[in-house]
Amino acid sequence: MASTREGEEKLTDITFSSEIKAELVDSMASDLRVVQAARVSTAGERANDKTELTERDKGLIKYLLRERHMSPTEHNYFTFFVKAPIFVMRELMRHRIASYNEESGRYRELKPEFYRPGNDRKLVQIGKPGHYEFIDGTQKQHAMTEDAYLHACGMAYDTYQDMLQSGIAREVARGVLPVTLFSSCYVTINARSLMNVISLRRNVPESTYPSYPQREIEFVAEDMEKAFAEKMPITHAAFVEFGRVAL
Amino acid sequence: MASTREGEEKLTDITFSSEIKAELVDSMASDLRVVQAARVSTAGERANDKTELTERDKGLIKYLLRERHMSPTEHNYFTFFVKAPIFVMRELMRHRIASYNEESGRYRELKPEFYRPGNDRKLVQIGKPGHYEFIDGTQKQHAMTEDAYLHACGMAYDTYQDMLQSGIAREVARGVLPVTLFSSCYVTINARSLMNVISLRRNVPESTYPSYPQREIEFVAEDMEKAFAEKMPITHAAFVEFGRVAL
Amino acid sequence: MASTREGEEKLTDITFSSEIKAELVDSMASDLRVVQAARVSTAGERANDKTELTERDKGLIKYLLRERHMSPTEHNYFTFFVKAPIFVMRELMRHRIASYNEESGRYRELKPEFYRPGNDRKLVQIGKPGHYEFIDGTQKQHAMTEDAYLHACGMAYDTYQDMLQSGIAREVARGVLPVTLFSSCYVTINARSLMNVISLRRNVPESTYPSYPQREIEFVAEDMEKAFAEKMPITHAAFVEFGRVAL
Amino acid sequence: MASTREGEEKLTDITFSSEIKAELVDSMASDLRVVQAARVSTAGERANDKTELTERDKGLIKYLLRERHMSPTEHNYFTFFVKAPIFVMRELMRHRIASYNEESGRYRELKPEFYRPGNDRKLVQIGKPGHYEFIDGTQKQHAMTEDAYLHACGMAYDTYQDMLQSGIAREVARGVLPVTLFSSCYVTINARSLMNVISLRRNVPESTYPSYPQREIEFVAEDMEKAFAEKMPITHAAFVEFGRVAL
Repeated sequence: MASTREGEEKLTDITFSSEIKAELVDSMASDLRVVQAARVSTAGERANDKTELTERDKGLIKYLLRERHMSPTEHNYFTFFVKAPIFVMRELMRHRIASYNEESGRYRELKPEFYRPGNDRKLVQIGKPGHYEFIDGTQKQHAMTEDAYLHACGMAYDTYQDMLQSGIAREVARGVLPVTLFSSCYVTINARSLMNVISLRRNVPESTYPSYPQREIEFVAEDMEKAFAEKMPITHAAFVEFGRVAL
Repeated sequence: MASTREGEEKLTDITFSSEIKAELVDSMASDLRVVQAARVSTAGERANDKTELTERDKGLIKYLLRERHMSPTEHNYFTFFVKAPIFVMRELMRHRIASYNEESGRYRELKPEFYRPGNDRKLVQIGKPGHYEFIDGTQKQHAMTEDAYLHACGMAYDTYQDMLQSGIAREVARGVLPVTLFSSCYVTINARSLMNVISLRRNVPESTYPSYPQREIEFVAEDMEKAFAEKMPITHAAFVEFGRVAL
Repeated sequence: MASTREGEEKLTDITFSSEIKAELVDSMASDLRVVQAARVSTAGERANDKTELTERDKGLIKYLLRERHMSPTEHNYFTFFVKAPIFVMRELMRHRIASYNEESGRYRELKPEFYRPGNDRKLVQIGKPGHYEFIDGTQKQHAMTEDAYLHACGMAYDTYQDMLQSGIAREVARGVLPVTLFSSCYVTINARSLMNVISLRRNVPESTYPSYPQREIEFVAEDMEKAFAEKMPITHAAFVEFGRVAL
Repeated sequence: MASTREGEEKLTDITFSSEIKAELVDSMASDLRVVQAARVSTAGERANDKTELTERDKGLIKYLLRERHMSPTEHNYFTFFVKAPIFVMRELMRHRIASYNEESGRYRELKPEFYRPGNDRKLVQIGKPGHYEFIDGTQKQHAMTEDAYLHACGMAYDTYQDMLQSGIAREVARGVLPVTLFSSCYVTINARSLMNVISLRRNVPESTYPSYPQREIEFVAEDMEKAFAEKMPITHAAFVEFGRVAL
């Protein structure tokens, strides 16, 4: 949805979206690989011969996840293309056991695409640090947020454009752009580190260690979890069964 | 220097500064430790007995850096307190072999302190991708940048305050704040990874692999290099002598 | 205790010991640093002002460990000098978030010092994979082990010496030396990774996730835990209180 | 080739081999992915559209490798099954940016398969530390090495068996086994870290920073390089062209 700001001189078309996503681009992942990697400790070079999962193998995966023997999950990799606002990218990149390549504000002119909370985004925070809860917010608060984002992002992007047009370098001009600006990024991560991401970046009350991530990074974690569950269903089920603990 | 924006309703005092810095908070670092760690390969447990650097030890350090045997530098650690705008923190945190704890826009109300390029910051970029050069910029361009930052940051911060005062959660409101907002961060890093940072984040033409970092992260890298040179002078000198290559 | 093997031609003095240890060589570690690093998220640059631990700070550390917010513990570093047999070094070096420099069989002639299980080392394993238990073993089994180590290590070292004296390179000759040969190593590790080591490499039944390490690496982990408890007593106590879980 | 040792009581069949190898088990790797990951910095989300390599793309890969912008190579992964003696595994596992699962001497009875230098293995080392060179060795030295390995490995394995048969735990008995015992291991590694391995673990005189690895780990590195060259020919060619430097 494109928006223009009435009553203002500049009329750059800017775009708002509340869609944050992680698309699976490539993977090298299977429950079988977990079993092979685990069996090498007892079977040595015969581990490689295994080509199909037996019931006993499924039991082994459960055992590994329950007893936190996580290293056999590391041979499974996922590459995602993530589209998310800068403030989400900032949180995501704190996960150091992964590889990232992101759009650059130094090398390209950034496009006027901004994240804005959707109508179902809970806006009001109650409780105290470490135990916040979120509640809906009034219609007025939703309208206010929409306006504020429209106004601030529009103004910032116009200012950015003004500087660019005056010949000022992109890397200087981008300083005024807000952290809700969308960015794009390739992320490659192994199943063990991915479990860490979804353990910390989704709020699942029945987890052994519940986490309280910002809603916006949950979208990324949800997409990642879907890909994980699809490619490695037994491992994912065991991860869930044993409290979503990633060590 | 505090600034107010004339002719606007809101008068939050916002602060601009062009000072970006990395203060050394603590360290466990010496040339001697490099020598001990290297000598263990040939001296075994007697490596520990060494308590003073000889000329031969200095030669050993040069040899290590020249031949890229870098692991003995990893036992040396530095903790910095970095004050820098978000766009610099973003670049810094791409260095994964380090530990970070940063100020949070979810857990605190962010202060209106913004980075703004100083008068000596070159504003205009010429050349093509990968080989940019920067030139000064006209006085008009400097004035324009100053105005644009004042205007955009002021507007963004007012909008942030409006949302907070309407009861909207900090983590939602902060979306409109620009990437030039100052943040604070503890960074702990070993000498090997630190050499990587200063190799990539300073522009030193006589380097074996010259790098073209954004000027603002160079301030951080310069401070880090000073601390490194002070605590580990022989290692630093060898790093410089052999082309500032960090592997 | 030096031993010679009667009735054999070669009489190289070889030494056996059952002492495996990790000596603290240097550290940059305190509970205060954990609090500073955690407080930066809410206090920004004022985090640095904190110079003494209050009761509230101690509560914060407990909160961090209970809720597995472990990153503030990463700014604390320990350097150990480890003396252990090769088979223990092999296990230790699987912990990738640490720095190592070890004695080299390529660059020095290895000394005839071997680990041999002490009299209190339980020799017999019962139960099934993943749930082994160890029991004492008979006096005969202890005598057998002592003899077997004496014989095999002596023979191997003589063969090593023979090859060296025939002009064969150290790196080729060392192939015959057993994994119980002692080695020396510098290890530098942060408190978070150290908690991971002691969580996995000590058997503490009341842990949330009990681990079943080989007895010999427990010696290393015990020494490391002592240093950790001494330098960071509040953090260590919280680690123990919340089940010795390291994430 | 199975060998028995005449004139000895025990007749366990033990096997010697001079073949060390790394078999490619799986991969997620292509030159195209390098280009996509690099282009995201300038093309944002359109980076994903690229499906074929143009000449300009090949030029980009050369540029990346020459200017050491290595992060775009990290999205490419290789899983190898490595069969190598323990002393090679020890060197390999020093590369921390990789995932490993190895055969366990605690969980299985180790098989009597030993590495022994082949006839073309240079046995004699001349020169001084850091600048060793290897020369062939006499026929007598080769015979001596063969005998020494046969004798020492046979003796060690018999002693291991004796202990096992006396009911002593595998993890205790394995202490006497030599570092030339073969082991098996899954290794998963990205292209950047793989370039680091082959840069350090192959001796290629025309490299910018020549390395002097032990011959036995070169076999592993050679196999890895073959897989790399096959799956990512343009990236590999650029790696070679620019001096085999991995940063």
